[in-house]
Amino acid sequence: MKYADMDAEALRATEQRVEQHLAALRGRNFQIDMTRGKPSAEQLDLTAEMMTIVGPDDCHGLDGTDYRNYGLGTGIPEAKALFAAYLEVPPDAVIVGGNSSLNLMYDALAGAVLYGVPGGDGPWRARAGLKFLCPVPGYDRHFLVCERLGLTMIPIEMTDEGPDMDHVEALVAEDAAIKGIWCVPKYSNPTGITYSDRVVDRLAAMKTAAADFRIMWDNAYAVHHLGDQRPVLRNIFEACAAKGTADRPLMFASTSKISYAGAGLAVMAASPANIRDAAAKMAVATIGPDKINQLRHVLFFRDMAGVHAHMDRHRALLAPKFAALDGALEGRLGGKGLAEWTKPEGGYFVSVDVLDGCATEAVRLAGEAGLALVPAGATFPYGRDPRDRNIRLAPTMLSLAEIDRAMDIFCISVERACVAKLRASEG
Amino acid sequence: MKYADMDAEALRATEQRVEQHLAALRGRNFQIDMTRGKPSAEQLDLTAEMMTIVGPDDCHGLDGTDYRNYGLGTGIPEAKALFAAYLEVPPDAVIVGGNSSLNLMYDALAGAVLYGVPGGDGPWRARAGLKFLCPVPGYDRHFLVCERLGLTMIPIEMTDEGPDMDHVEALVAEDAAIKGIWCVPKYSNPTGITYSDRVVDRLAAMKTAAADFRIMWDNAYAVHHLGDQRPVLRNIFEACAAKGTADRPLMFASTSKISYAGAGLAVMAASPANIRDAAAKMAVATIGPDKINQLRHVLFFRDMAGVHAHMDRHRALLAPKFAALDGALEGRLGGKGLAEWTKPEGGYFVSVDVLDGCATEAVRLAGEAGLALVPAGATFPYGRDPRDRNIRLAPTMLSLAEIDRAMDIFCISVERACVAKLRASEG
Repeated sequence: MKYADMDAEALRATEQRVEQHLAALRGRNFQIDMTRGKPSAEQLDLTAEMMTIVGPDDCHGLDGTDYRNYGLGTGIPEAKALFAAYLEVPPDAVIVGGNSSLNLMYDALAGAVLYGVPGGDGPWRARAGLKFLCPVPGYDRHFLVCERLGLTMIPIEMTDEGPDMDHVEALVAEDAAIKGIWCVPKYSNPTGITYSDRVVDRLAAMKTAAADFRIMWDNAYAVHHLGDQRPVLRNIFEACAAKGTADRPLMFASTSKISYAGAGLAVMAASPANIRDAAAKMAVATIGPDKINQLRHVLFFRDMAGVHAHMDRHRALLAPKFAALDGALEGRLGGKGLAEWTKPEGGYFVSVDVLDGCATEAVRLAGEAGLALVPAGATFPYGRDPRDRNIRLAPTMLSLAEIDRAMDIFCISVERACVAKLRASEG
Repeated sequence: MKYADMDAEALRATEQRVEQHLAALRGRNFQIDMTRGKPSAEQLDLTAEMMTIVGPDDCHGLDGTDYRNYGLGTGIPEAKALFAAYLEVPPDAVIVGGNSSLNLMYDALAGAVLYGVPGGDGPWRARAGLKFLCPVPGYDRHFLVCERLGLTMIPIEMTDEGPDMDHVEALVAEDAAIKGIWCVPKYSNPTGITYSDRVVDRLAAMKTAAADFRIMWDNAYAVHHLGDQRPVLRNIFEACAAKGTADRPLMFASTSKISYAGAGLAVMAASPANIRDAAAKMAVATIGPDKINQLRHVLFFRDMAGVHAHMDRHRALLAPKFAALDGALEGRLGGKGLAEWTKPEGGYFVSVDVLDGCATEAVRLAGEAGLALVPAGATFPYGRDPRDRNIRLAPTMLSLAEIDRAMDIFCISVERACVAKLRASEG
């Protein structure tokens, strides 16, 4: 039954039962970490052959360029071709960087602050009070970049087809201080939704008061399927070109969750003006990326068929974990009216909304019982979830047995926090 | 004889002879590139075993940390230990980054502009007209970073023991807008000199009007010996700590010219406050460095004995090239009073000073005859050599035969430019 329908007596009894369960768990000194979306060792093993695939005699490009030496600051042509197919853009729209797409995204925004971007009127630092739109719940490391750079964040509600576009359109049309929006358009972090065609088209077509408005299109989970449903994300590069806003999107991706989280490749794609601008900034800031590691990826994956076949192997490892997590949530929280959660078709997370005002307490209780979760609020700008209800679950790194145990702790912690809340609001 | 002592007749005859020689060279369509300090393929082959030294089963740290995954944003402990020995600092003073020390240096200064540094009064961007000292001739990519960030560069003459410290001390004591100085303290780019103990001590001890003055200590050639003379560079980390200026130096190095120019490691070392500051900035800007590539370097070199033994093999390849270059300069320009040049005990360059006003023309003539040199002026801020006399030669990438040919073109180009100048000043 729904806990909200319980009478005071039943609630009190439930609280007692839950508290006993939690106390028992606390005594067992579990240590389970569910904070971040990390691949498991089994997933990392899938690219074992990549580790030694480039030998000392394989270090040259087709034109004889020695990839061990300096040069090719925007990446090797073979890697550009692979990631052009990955992002569905032309190869000359691609920059292949180092191992961190977060770093490419940071550099893109830090570069805008320091020097400006094409179509703008100079460095963003020249103007105070600049803002950025942040669909919520979202990715905490996107928000940290804005916070660090002094870009004031405006939360935008996520719907089941992407950010609330009525709100977005109204804001950007009026306010030239709004310089951009963060998007994880496919299997979004953490809600798992994929932007609808209509949302992509509206993002491409909308009028923005800022001439140099940028869409930070972090396509982190482009090929990270969990189910048989494979939603097709509309190509924003083409959508913007068609609407005359070609310079608007900056697209990003990485192989952090395809090859190695610590030793993968990061990639950026954008219009010719944006690529020229980024390449010129990079030419001052770095000698260029590790080209040998780019070659490793090219030799291992070869083409998109290779990438997709590889991601099927990831899926085989991950889908059972998400099924176990969902099953546990259904079994332990289903029908109680305490929480709603996503059932993602891809990506790395399950997003849980508990009763308003209960997330912080549930995360605290879970921590006491040995389950580390990302802090409540982390999925919101400045770490502030106005309804204190969203919690991001990251099951990929855990074994099935650990997931069962983690969900045991999590669900009872949610129950405990919510029952306390319900009792308090009764009294 | 010295050309300056020739009479008009002799000068005219010399010009004719030189011009004929040059015309003959022009007709032969040489294509020799001496612009950058790049290692040769033979040098890159020295680390052939590194390419596959880390196999799929070697990817864990001593504590079990999986280096293929996220984490350890300031580098793996094994690499910190190796580079602590390299830079003669404690391991916790070290950050091991990606493959580009230029990128670490850029991020250090861009971070200062955006957010400030320990000991300062906030972001440098809050204050207009900031300046940086640039010993000349120096490294063009240092100068480009300052130019891009809007830091006005003040040239400082290099003596044979480092920058002119009388000038440096006088400037930094008075002007709080001067925020730092670039230094390549060992086998300096391009003059090859190593800073004397006295210069290091004065840099550590000098009073600076700016509380957050930084020494950008780019120790790019710490172990890159060419001769048996091995000057010992005084440890600026310790010198500054002794003088109460521990936060002043930011030390940098890389293996670009030890392992791979495109796939090496970059490292930074500094005081605890600076390392905390840099690590906090990196935590926002990147997921961290490629730890597997760090492991490759550790397994290959093991310790400083391994590094030194390896650098002996580099030296065996490079010393003959520098000898050939010097021999050609002596043979073709010696005694003519047209040029002076360095005879470096280490590093990657020979610095040539031709007659005032002749460098641009000599570089142009060499280019016409098929020898690409770095543009005249590149070794000075804003590309402006006030005496138009300095030219940087980079022989490492070339074969001995190519060096002979290159010096043939270079010397005759210098002669041609200088003779024209002498004739013009006669007439």
